[in-house]
Amino acid sequence: MTTPTVKIVVSRNLGPEVMPLLDRPDFEVISCPSQTEACSRKWLSENVVGAVGLIVVLTDKVDAELIETAGPSLRVVSTMSVGYEHIDVQQLSQRGIKLGYTPDILTEAVADLSIMLALMAGRNARQTATIWPQYAWSPFLFCGPQLSANWVYPTRTAGFLGFGRIAQATLARLIPFGFTHCLYSGNPTSPPDPARDATVAAKYGLQSVRRVAGLDELARESDVVFVLAPGDPSLYHVVDEAFLKQMKRTAVLVNTSRGTLVDSDALAKALREGWIWGAGIDVVEGEPNVTADHPLVKEPRCAIVPHIGSATTETRLGMATMAVNNLIAGLLGGEMPAQVKM
Amino acid sequence: MTTPTVKIVVSRNLGPEVMPLLDRPDFEVISCPSQTEACSRKWLSENVVGAVGLIVVLTDKVDAELIETAGPSLRVVSTMSVGYEHIDVQQLSQRGIKLGYTPDILTEAVADLSIMLALMAGRNARQTATIWPQYAWSPFLFCGPQLSANWVYPTRTAGFLGFGRIAQATLARLIPFGFTHCLYSGNPTSPPDPARDATVAAKYGLQSVRRVAGLDELARESDVVFVLAPGDPSLYHVVDEAFLKQMKRTAVLVNTSRGTLVDSDALAKALREGWIWGAGIDVVEGEPNVTADHPLVKEPRCAIVPHIGSATTETRLGMATMAVNNLIAGLLGGEMPAQVKM
Repeated sequence: MTTPTVKIVVSRNLGPEVMPLLDRPDFEVISCPSQTEACSRKWLSENVVGAVGLIVVLTDKVDAELIETAGPSLRVVSTMSVGYEHIDVQQLSQRGIKLGYTPDILTEAVADLSIMLALMAGRNARQTATIWPQYAWSPFLFCGPQLSANWVYPTRTAGFLGFGRIAQATLARLIPFGFTHCLYSGNPTSPPDPARDATVAAKYGLQSVRRVAGLDELARESDVVFVLAPGDPSLYHVVDEAFLKQMKRTAVLVNTSRGTLVDSDALAKALREGWIWGAGIDVVEGEPNVTADHPLVKEPRCAIVPHIGSATTETRLGMATMAVNNLIAGLLGGEMPAQVKM
Repeated sequence: MTTPTVKIVVSRNLGPEVMPLLDRPDFEVISCPSQTEACSRKWLSENVVGAVGLIVVLTDKVDAELIETAGPSLRVVSTMSVGYEHIDVQQLSQRGIKLGYTPDILTEAVADLSIMLALMAGRNARQTATIWPQYAWSPFLFCGPQLSANWVYPTRTAGFLGFGRIAQATLARLIPFGFTHCLYSGNPTSPPDPARDATVAAKYGLQSVRRVAGLDELARESDVVFVLAPGDPSLYHVVDEAFLKQMKRTAVLVNTSRGTLVDSDALAKALREGWIWGAGIDVVEGEPNVTADHPLVKEPRCAIVPHIGSATTETRLGMATMAVNNLIAGLLGGEMPAQVKM
């Protein structure tokens, strides 16, 4: 008697360490043949028909049309990402399809990159990085504002738009740089929690940790602003001209969450006109369609990288493994390591 | 009666905040006219004749010839740098000329840059930084080793060649990245100090801090090696092929101290052949004569910046102020804020 199999579609080759986890007698696995190329929408639509499980990444759109194309067999969608804006959660919910995702595991990698970009923004990375020009040394050449506390500015304030796990891992990394104060904006539907703030302050030895009533104060007081909020429509362009105009001229802005939170044109203008000193950008509205003539790509004061927040070998291996484990647990009826509540 | 004046020569314009400190009725100040261009050797030789005080920077050679040219009037040399390899200390000593320098004030700025370069080396900065290419997302694109502790590697070891103030400020910054162990090489003429090591370990909550007996162990065990030793001739090319061959294939090397400590050709070969993952380089042997065809400038796995360790506005302002204060204190016979012991 042959084991009955279910069809599993995987939109990317997850590599030699992870793909073998799907080698099971009850699975018929169809995966995108290329390890480096994205599967096309056409490939996905053709192959998803009759799938019971589907593993996708951030650049695959799982909309009503694709879910309809898959048909009633589909029971679990598993995305190798912490965000799920690319997935029609309502459609899945209506059809009783489970959704897995990969939170937490990428926290440290994104916090690492947030610090790298905060440093690169102050250190003129666009002029200084990747090339050693022959130049005449002069006392203030290439100088920008120092991230760490110093004799001119013995206190340092970090501002966070969003104060979840990645923000707090980033804050932890700033402590030995001499940061003394932390401001953050939280979810407006949840009440302020001064007791929690006091706990965080005590944990890190900060002089203060405080949720701001309005964004004005966060913009005005911060030496670095980290945008680390989810890509919620209510936060669309939360960093706009008005916000940037209130920031310190020596401050830097870092966005390692979602491109839609920052108005790219406003930021390019702020950098060009010196409203703020610099920016460190991992995500851009409209990505991956970002070309060399994009205003932020052209801006010398903007250190910009192509959405590599979670791109370390260990973290991506962890995310791919978790995506597979979510799929398997979801299909077997067990508890998924990380399931989106719908 | 006019106040008698002494001649002060300043090899760089120190900017509008610092130059006024030299506006004194007893000083006749001659400074390089350009704020951005280096003064030539010719300018310095012509103007130094009869000087009582001389302020220089790292790229000015204060050798026997220049000291002879200045003549017997010279009483104080003050360099706006922590290193003084460019100055003939023995000549100054023989003539009873005091030498001032600017240690400590740049510690935090250099530690900041050391962390930036360690991150850039792992995150493929040469491929990812400053440009957003259009590319097909794939699970392991742009991935390198993660600096912070992670599910694959829950422990992290930092290795330091030299363990002075900058190394310790860098170590402090690594703690929230999950570093658990520290190895360092110390001055071979001073004995090991396990009690001091235990104090440092306890201060930072590290599992161990230990001075290695030989460099082999440091090369083998470290996830990141920071070169933070003085440019002493005894340390010339201390990082050579033998050292690099013993490092982990996933490790990165960061040099923010002196270019002569690292054999550039050996490092380029190590990167090209995959003996180590990447490098972050602020200093290069032979600088500033480093051109686009230098093996490290050409190497994609090498994040390289043009000796900007101390290049923040606040730190350079502090160094320039300290250089002037050293000069004035030395001439007035008071205690210099930082005088080289000869």
